[in-house]
Amino acid sequence: MTALRPDAFIREQGDAPAAGAPNLTLWISEAGGLGQFGAFVEVLQPGTRSSLAHWHSAEDEMVYVLEGQVTLVEGTTETVLHPGDAATFKAGVPVGHCLWNRSAAPTRCLVVGTRAPLDRITYPELDRVRVRDRSLPDDTWTTIAGAPASSPFA
Amino acid sequence: MTALRPDAFIREQGDAPAAGAPNLTLWISEAGGLGQFGAFVEVLQPGTRSSLAHWHSAEDEMVYVLEGQVTLVEGTTETVLHPGDAATFKAGVPVGHCLWNRSAAPTRCLVVGTRAPLDRITYPELDRVRVRDRSLPDDTWTTIAGAPASSPFA
Repeated sequence: MTALRPDAFIREQGDAPAAGAPNLTLWISEAGGLGQFGAFVEVLQPGTRSSLAHWHSAEDEMVYVLEGQVTLVEGTTETVLHPGDAATFKAGVPVGHCLWNRSAAPTRCLVVGTRAPLDRITYPELDRVRVRDRSLPDDTWTTIAGAPASSPFA
Repeated sequence: MTALRPDAFIREQGDAPAAGAPNLTLWISEAGGLGQFGAFVEVLQPGTRSSLAHWHSAEDEMVYVLEGQVTLVEGTTETVLHPGDAATFKAGVPVGHCLWNRSAAPTRCLVVGTRAPLDRITYPELDRVRVRDRSLPDDTWTTIAGAPASSPFA
């Protein structure tokens, strides 16, 4: 049996970077034992965003809006997405993106991202790169130029 | 810009194996230029199913129900899924699965599957294996025991 009711999704109450109330991540992939891609429902309270703006060197990502109006931020472009809209983020496209709930009601999105063995996640606004080697326990951080650097989340 | 309104999804009107009206696949991954996983909204008319029952050797799959009541068939087990429910199919688990719309209204599901370089797709009820090498233009077919065989779709 691989059917999963929503109460079987694995709940993760995340930090809310920079603004507002915490986000809630409801993991489907982990609840179902998948390892090749991550998939989760992300609930954003008004005023919160999914992450700091970032892009992946090696992992394709996709968002599908389930509920509410959520603002997709890509570089300096903003687009309001509605239920049934999607957005794709191809690996290696160097434009920072995040989802921001600027509405007055919670939003829900389904988010999918590949799990690559090696990935570099660039945060253009912060001059930081998160270096992720999934064979190692911890990520490391550099500046965009490659110098060792502190985590912006520390 | 990677935002995709539903009218930008790539429409594919599929064959309906074995029963009912044709299925409609609305491709998000191809519309957005992704290659690491496939993602689409699948619309099933009453009486149709997503595919013949099958399982993948190398590709994780996931379904998230958007609209309607859809019956998940896994081996001899059937589970009715509702909007917000999900199902996961881990690569290599040898249980044939498909989605079947036995309701009186159309159903819509979001479906995601990894794109592995090499995959073997087993159809247990048909004694057939589809051998997919994404470096080659066409799939080939064998029996489960490995003898050359005809396509069940021919």
